[in-house]
Amino acid sequence: MAAKSKILVLGGTGYIGKFIVKASTEAGHPTFVLIRENTVSHPEKSKLIETFKASGVTLLYGDLHDHESLVKALKEVDVVISTLGGQQIDDQVKLIAAIKEAGNIKRFLPSEFGLDVDRHNAVEPAASFFNKKVNIRRTVEAEGIPYTYVCSYAFSGYFLSTLGQQNVTAPPRDKVVILGNGNVKAVYVSEEDVGTYTIKAVDDPRTLNKTLYMKLPANVLSFNQLVSLWENKIKSTLEKVYIPEDQLLKNIQESPFPANFMLALGHAMVVKEVISNHELDPSLGVEASEIYPEVKYTTVDNYLNAFV
Amino acid sequence: MAAKSKILVLGGTGYIGKFIVKASTEAGHPTFVLIRENTVSHPEKSKLIETFKASGVTLLYGDLHDHESLVKALKEVDVVISTLGGQQIDDQVKLIAAIKEAGNIKRFLPSEFGLDVDRHNAVEPAASFFNKKVNIRRTVEAEGIPYTYVCSYAFSGYFLSTLGQQNVTAPPRDKVVILGNGNVKAVYVSEEDVGTYTIKAVDDPRTLNKTLYMKLPANVLSFNQLVSLWENKIKSTLEKVYIPEDQLLKNIQESPFPANFMLALGHAMVVKEVISNHELDPSLGVEASEIYPEVKYTTVDNYLNAFV
Repeated sequence: MAAKSKILVLGGTGYIGKFIVKASTEAGHPTFVLIRENTVSHPEKSKLIETFKASGVTLLYGDLHDHESLVKALKEVDVVISTLGGQQIDDQVKLIAAIKEAGNIKRFLPSEFGLDVDRHNAVEPAASFFNKKVNIRRTVEAEGIPYTYVCSYAFSGYFLSTLGQQNVTAPPRDKVVILGNGNVKAVYVSEEDVGTYTIKAVDDPRTLNKTLYMKLPANVLSFNQLVSLWENKIKSTLEKVYIPEDQLLKNIQESPFPANFMLALGHAMVVKEVISNHELDPSLGVEASEIYPEVKYTTVDNYLNAFV
Repeated sequence: MAAKSKILVLGGTGYIGKFIVKASTEAGHPTFVLIRENTVSHPEKSKLIETFKASGVTLLYGDLHDHESLVKALKEVDVVISTLGGQQIDDQVKLIAAIKEAGNIKRFLPSEFGLDVDRHNAVEPAASFFNKKVNIRRTVEAEGIPYTYVCSYAFSGYFLSTLGQQNVTAPPRDKVVILGNGNVKAVYVSEEDVGTYTIKAVDDPRTLNKTLYMKLPANVLSFNQLVSLWENKIKSTLEKVYIPEDQLLKNIQESPFPANFMLALGHAMVVKEVISNHELDPSLGVEASEIYPEVKYTTVDNYLNAFV
């Protein structure tokens, strides 16, 4: 049995990064996290770093903007997973340059973990954001770096815990705001499952130079279906406030950044067709639950039970 | 009397850009707006473009990523105001390169219109965003391009119309969420006034290579003062839900992008001291209402009257 690859995570203390680090150590991969010297003094992040250490993670000090430190860190590992934040998408060209120089990286997963950015229907300013990810994809391909792109759609832990409503700490029991007509399908994947599937993919020849779609069959739901599922659980009917697409587009146009960006992402996620507008082309990608049937993923149905 | 400078606005159909275009034409400046070929097919933007044409604006077709079109547009004007969106801050290096090549630009105002990014106390990911603006400032200075930086703080039309609350269309009458202790001062400036002061600054030697601070005395208020002002107007007391800073920092850490970005901006705007932490150093900047006393700016007090 081949040794498990050594994995370096950039952005490991971030929202999705920490789940990927956890999945990596649990799957027995020697796991490395690149952190900046000043990260240890951040109150929330320092707690996380202690957890990492306790689970055997090796901390490497370095910075995306320090080429030498980056190349040095890359030489210690086989696989690089970037979970860098939305403000750092463009900066990944520096990581790509370092991967080229290091020359030993067997697989690179750029920071994605959302929609399939090559097939979005977003309006500005979300379109520009997705296009930054597209540019990174094209750079990776042009440089001939082995890759996997991860499409994990909406995070359950973030989205289902509020049904996408603002200023609430649990799914609503009185009123729900629905963008568009509520009939467009989206996919909700738990953060733990994003971690598990991502780590399974890193050494898998089936995901080499392909996209891993977490289009988990039980979790593909329209917003109306989601609300109905929740109503059945709480045995109550919610007041539904629909925001038609043209109103939403007007709101986007009339809001400053980043409010317009939040709205445009909502538009791209639940108003525009992100799922059924393309069938999975096997030459481009594979579906996670299909190639990893052994993973018992968390269904939306089960996820919502925690809030009843 | 010298002829008024010819002004080119990039991002003129955007949130603040349209107010700057309006102020420019009203002040009698020959006004040019750079638009992309496909902008005219955008339903909301095409209406705006018709308004521009009716007020005498010259439309120039071009793109930030098309160097030749940019240089050609720049050669037609004297002053460049960038109001490009938050996703395009970094891309302004292309504009700077074109300004260098054109060689005729007497003043450049990069896309700012917020806090003084050289003096912020923001946490990530807002810090990275502000630092992108800082990088643009340093590039402008290194290239020796004459500049003015505009700090206009919070937009009244966006912020006061909801008192920063989510999912409301008017200032709240029952309950208000307050970030931090509510005692930190911020500044609220109407979009029209941002346009007026910005246009006054472009030909003014007092703002050359300086920052124009719109620290309008009547509009410097803590959140608690703002709520109290509103309560007096509606003769009613609101329930106040305070989110302490450490809770807010935890929420930022536990939210995915861009929700963490929105929260971090809120933190930077109303929890951290953005105003009184620095006295205006006359070598760095000038205060708008002080150098343009003839402008009768809209006070927060007056602005809120519209919602009573």
